[in-house]
Order: sequence, then structure tokens, then C-alpha cells
Amino acid sequence: MLKINQNRLWNRLMTMAEIGGTPKGGVCRVALSEEDKRGRDLFIEWCTAAGCTVEVDPMGNIFARRAGIDPNLPAVMIGSHLDSQPTGGKFDGVYGVLAGLEVIECLNDHNVKTKHPIEIVSWTNEEGARFAPAMIGSGVFAGTFSLDYAYSRTDKEGKTLGEELVKIGYQGTAPLGQRAYKATFEIHIEQGPILEAEEKSVGIVTGVQGIHWYDLILTGKETHAGPSPMSYRVDPVKAAIPVLQQVYQLAETYAPHARVTIGYLDASPGVKNTVPGQLKISLDLRHPDADILEQMDSDLKSIIAEVSEHTTVQSELEDIWYSPPVAFDPNCITAVQAAVDQLQIPAMQMVSGAGHDAVYLAGYAPTSMIFIPCEDGLSHNELENAFPEDVEAGTNVLLHATLSMAEQLE
Amino acid sequence: MLKINQNRLWNRLMTMAEIGGTPKGGVCRVALSEEDKRGRDLFIEWCTAAGCTVEVDPMGNIFARRAGIDPNLPAVMIGSHLDSQPTGGKFDGVYGVLAGLEVIECLNDHNVKTKHPIEIVSWTNEEGARFAPAMIGSGVFAGTFSLDYAYSRTDKEGKTLGEELVKIGYQGTAPLGQRAYKATFEIHIEQGPILEAEEKSVGIVTGVQGIHWYDLILTGKETHAGPSPMSYRVDPVKAAIPVLQQVYQLAETYAPHARVTIGYLDASPGVKNTVPGQLKISLDLRHPDADILEQMDSDLKSIIAEVSEHTTVQSELEDIWYSPPVAFDPNCITAVQAAVDQLQIPAMQMVSGAGHDAVYLAGYAPTSMIFIPCEDGLSHNELENAFPEDVEAGTNVLLHATLSMAEQLE
Repeated sequence: MLKINQNRLWNRLMTMAEIGGTPKGGVCRVALSEEDKRGRDLFIEWCTAAGCTVEVDPMGNIFARRAGIDPNLPAVMIGSHLDSQPTGGKFDGVYGVLAGLEVIECLNDHNVKTKHPIEIVSWTNEEGARFAPAMIGSGVFAGTFSLDYAYSRTDKEGKTLGEELVKIGYQGTAPLGQRAYKATFEIHIEQGPILEAEEKSVGIVTGVQGIHWYDLILTGKETHAGPSPMSYRVDPVKAAIPVLQQVYQLAETYAPHARVTIGYLDASPGVKNTVPGQLKISLDLRHPDADILEQMDSDLKSIIAEVSEHTTVQSELEDIWYSPPVAFDPNCITAVQAAVDQLQIPAMQMVSGAGHDAVYLAGYAPTSMIFIPCEDGLSHNELENAFPEDVEAGTNVLLHATLSMAEQLE
Repeated sequence: MLKINQNRLWNRLMTMAEIGGTPKGGVCRVALSEEDKRGRDLFIEWCTAAGCTVEVDPMGNIFARRAGIDPNLPAVMIGSHLDSQPTGGKFDGVYGVLAGLEVIECLNDHNVKTKHPIEIVSWTNEEGARFAPAMIGSGVFAGTFSLDYAYSRTDKEGKTLGEELVKIGYQGTAPLGQRAYKATFEIHIEQGPILEAEEKSVGIVTGVQGIHWYDLILTGKETHAGPSPMSYRVDPVKAAIPVLQQVYQLAETYAPHARVTIGYLDASPGVKNTVPGQLKISLDLRHPDADILEQMDSDLKSIIAEVSEHTTVQSELEDIWYSPPVAFDPNCITAVQAAVDQLQIPAMQMVSGAGHDAVYLAGYAPTSMIFIPCEDGLSHNELENAFPEDVEAGTNVLLHATLSMAEQLE
């Protein structure tokens, strides 16, 4: 059976990790930064050397195509992202892009021709760490967001996504969307502990959890810490405590699949000797079942309403983003399962807890995902790690799932 | 009886408030900023025009002296600060400095001579908003901190106080400390609601609450929000909830004088879809009784130790600053009380809830404070306001307390 070249793939992962590499061994290659630009440049250089035709669309998404025998047939696409969290790791996103390139390199090495073209895509700003919402490049491609909306997103310094895209030279001219795909695959580290605990090398991903993002804004009265008696205060931090308590309780009520994450609590003005006038709390709720996620949304609103009755602090819940649960395409799942069986790799079916570009692609073309384990389930962390044997096994599964869809010619 | 010129004082307060003035009517004149420099320059210009001799020490503290008949006698000093909170008001600090200048202007107007010199001081970085700890200029002057320690303090961007002092041109050459004072007064807005509620124009301040500042650092495990089951997480935000709850409880246990303030909760990395690896919580505990404040400190440590037993999140309590409760000088208090009586101003004795430069001065020379009300008790807030009649009444009390100590010559 055809096998990928693990050394080449691993070396490229390590080379890419040097761009934005951090002292702790992680990566800071935040979307549309100077590092992101350098990562993109290197990826395009490799794709061009591998004989691909490269195009960039107005969202900065990069498409590298290996021709098939019949140029009129829809491509089989493999995509993920090159951007990282501010304190991210070497594998999140980049593995999916470079594994796709390795599939093409492997076909080149063995002079394999396919009926359908094969296309590798790197999507812009998957992480959402600099510009919210996440997965905006694939979202615009698939028609979920407008280009204008994406361009108007701002980072913490007030810079817009549109300006920054132009600044790094990646506002391309390829038509937006309008690409026909027979199937799309995304391979990614699991970003959770399950595969490692179950001693599997590959996860056959059948769908993705739904995600709901909010900002809860609690507004009190900014006052000096010393002279105001406690009873005179309108303190948003104090008011937040019962909210936080009950929000975490949601994860227990809807266990084991519910996830509740509070990423930040930004007090303003945020100095030691001032009772904050405002506290902004991020909420990330997830569940694989749309009905339960809706119930969690409704519970959240009740919690806030109830707590509001017992305080003079004002509360406002901003609905930032909702990504419904996704069920992947049965044919794509079957292609991955068949590759796993052929290769005799220890694997299991599972649901993704994280959002991925594949979520938006699933609404555009038949799509599924492949996971490999990451050490200790750590991700969005500089210590994120994946084992070479899993990186290799996953990419071989990707190779054969892709070949079955792209129709290898003997 | 001699009275100050309220129009001149009020106009100067409003002119100074334009430097760093905010759209909401507040002031952002943070220590050692460009605005702080402009405020200092204007103050020195006014003092020089009023015939004062101006000196600056290596901490950037500004001393403006009106000569007395006998240059060998210790001065009577009136001091406060020109720096503000990032979202501060028009009166906090600056009132104490310009009221002092108005006392000198009034004596000039009426050609009054005093036996002792009178000195106005503006202390560097009272607020501690940019460089912690607060009151560092008066603290170095009085010998509580070393100059090197002060110079090494950094702001959030990593700039040191020493560098920034040089940058605005206020690292002076006057000998540090070594100034003899017969008495020192600080007049300030109350920054609390008591005087207004009691319908008094002046507070005769007999002492200051003790203050204890900490950073509580909770360290968990930074992980991706979606894929990590709740039971695998080590989440510092979740671990913080029972700590926050019990810390606020301290204020009730030691009511009514105890104060508990949480100024910020900084999650790191602070993005929506990552369980924070670390949460840094500021704690500000205050009480006028040193024994009770020590008990609160001990209770705080027990709370953290107990919560630590029930979580794998690591906790560390950093002791940032302690300012013991202060009892002011009986003779200074008597001088203020006598001025209040002479002027027949509605007044009451009280304890300050906030720290002030007078706390460090009290360890250096006989010292007391005068308060005036501020609207709704609001301070460290752009809406901070004081009424002209109270500004006038307080300054007249300051004038006569100063005159009784400086010994007016008929």
C-alpha cells in the first residue's frame, strides 16, 4: 500500500514551527501578523515546488491545486489553517495543511494520477484569537459571513481584519467561493484527552459540538476602594460570583457532553484600589446536541435574570456567535473508516469538541474530519505535542480516504 | 477673618483639569505621563509667579516655599499630588496642592508674614495606578522605600518609574528628605459618602485606615475550551469562585469598618476558547484597627489554604503592600478643629478610608488631614465632583490651621 514520507512531513512541521516559535517550544503565529505572512509565504513556496497551482481569494484563503485527469470534475479538498493562538502549539491547524501537502508530495513521488483534482487549502483566521469570530475565512468562503463583515472585525488595538490582510499582502483576487468539491477532509490533533486515554491513533470524526459564545457585561459603580462603605457599593465582581457558580453548574446539569469555559474576566478600569465600574466575562458553552445547547442558552438567561433581581448591578448578555452542532457526510466518514480498516490502524469514532473550518465546509460540500491524539490532551498551549507515529498514521488515513474519493488511476 | 479667594482657586482647579481632561468630564493624568509633566509645569509656573522658591528632589517631588521671617525655623507644609487615576476626577489630589498654593496667594494678597516658612508639595505617583505601590513619592521622601526600589517599579508595558521620571525631566537634585517640618497638612476630597450624608462641609481627619494589598495567583492548566471534558480540567476561574465568596464574607465578619475590594481578575491568555492557565486577582483589604486588619490577613490565608485542599489548582498569595493604620498628630488635629470652630463651619471628626501621602508624612513630622465632601461619594471616577462652597470652606480651614502653626505676625 502507498505510504506517506513521515520524515518530510515531520521536518516541515518543525520548520514551520520556527516561524513564531516561542522560548517554551510553542508557536505564536496569530492571524495576519508578520509571522502569519511568513508562514503563508513558506507554504506557497513548498506548494509551488510540488507543482501545484496556487490561488488566493479576497479573504486571504490559499488554494493549492494538483490537477486531475479531468479538469471539469470537482476536486477533493484537504484544508485547515496556519494561524495559531497567541500561546499555541506546533500542530493545531498547521498539521492539517502540511498533511494535505504531504499527500500531494506522496502522489508525486509515486507518479500516481487521479481522476479528480486534489486541492489543499489554508483558511484565514481560524483561531479567532485576534479577530472574533473564529473560522471566519472558511465562514466567508462557505457564505456564512459576508466579506464586508469579515473585513470590519477589529483586534484589541482597533486594527481591522481588512487593513491587516492588505498589509501582509494576502488580499487575493481568486473568485470568492465558487469552487466545486466532491469531498473535503480536515485532519487535526484532537485537542482533548480521549484518543490518548483510549490508546487509539486515529479518530473518525462523525460531527462537531455546537458552540455558543457570549460576553456578559456587568455594570456597577466605579468608586474608590477605601472610603466607600460596603453597603454603598455597586460592585460587579461581587455580583458575578453567583452567576459564575451557576454557569459552571450548567456543565454538571448537562454532563457529560456539556462544556462551559470562561476565558476572561476583564474589570474596568482594572486597578487595585478602585471598585470596578464594569466587568466583562466571556462565556463559551458547547454541546453536541442542538436541543440541549438551546436549553443551556435558555438556562443561562434565567440565571442572569434571577441574579439581576438580587443586585443593583446591571447585566447585559451579548450574543457573540453561535455555531450549531454538525453531522458530517456519511460517504466521507465511510471513506475514512475504510482507510483505517485497510491500514489496520487502532481507531474509534468520535465527536469533535472544538470548532473547525470543517464545520462551515460541511454546509458547502460533503465533509468529514480525522483526528490524531495529542499529548495529555493539551492544545491552545505552548506545550501542545503530537507523536510522530500518530502524525504518520493519520496522514496515511488521509491519503487513502483522499485517493478513494479522487479515484486513483492504475 | 482672613479668607481665601475662591474664584482664583476654582479657576485654577478647572484649568488644571483641562490637562488630561476626558470627554466625560474626568481627568487622565497618570503619573509620569506627558499630561503629568504638563500639570507639573503649570503648577511650577503658578508657584514662581506667587514668589515661591521651587525645588525638585530625585523622586520628582516638587517643593514650593514661601519664606518665613526666620529661615532657620522648620516650615509648615501643605502637600498632596497632581497625578490621577486613568479614569479619575478633577479634585482627587490636585485640590490639596492648589489649596496650598491658594493659602500662599491669600497671604501674599494681604501681605501677611509668618514666622515659619510655608511649603507646598506635590508628591510623585500617589495613585499607584501606573506604578505600584501607591504613595511612593512621599514614601521615599519619608524613608519608607529606597530610591532604587522606586526607580525599579514597572508599569504594564515594562517601563520603569526611573526611566519615565527622567523622560519627563523631573528627576531633580534637591537633597532627598532632610526637610524640617513643624507641621504638615493635607486637604483632600473624602472619596466616600459620609460627609455628604451627614451634611458637613469639613471632616477633621484623626487617622487613616490600614491597607493591605495582595495579588492572588491561581495556576491551572491552559487547555482548549471544547474537547477537554470538564473532569479533566484544572480551571483557575472555577477555583476562584469559593475564594471570592469567602473574601467578600470578610467584609461582613468585620463590619462595618472592614473594606474588601477586587480591582481586577486577569486571566491568561484571556481568550474565549481557552481555559485560562492562570488567573491573577487583586485584593485590597482595609480596616482602621491594626489588630483586626492582621486578623483579616490571617483569615485570608486560611481561606486560600482551605480552598487549595479541594482543588488541583495551585495558589500563591503575593504580599504587595501593607500600610498600617495611622493616628494623626493631636496638635495638628487641634489646629484644624480650632479653625473649624473659628470659622463656624459644619464639621465632624472622622477616619480616612483611603491611603494618602499624609500617611507617610505622619511618620516624618506632625501631620493631619482635612476632608471635604464629594458628590455621591464618587471618586476614582470621571464623574467625581466637589461643590464650590465646600472647596472654599475647606481651604479657609486649611488657611487658619496653617497660620496658627506658622505663627502669623501682626
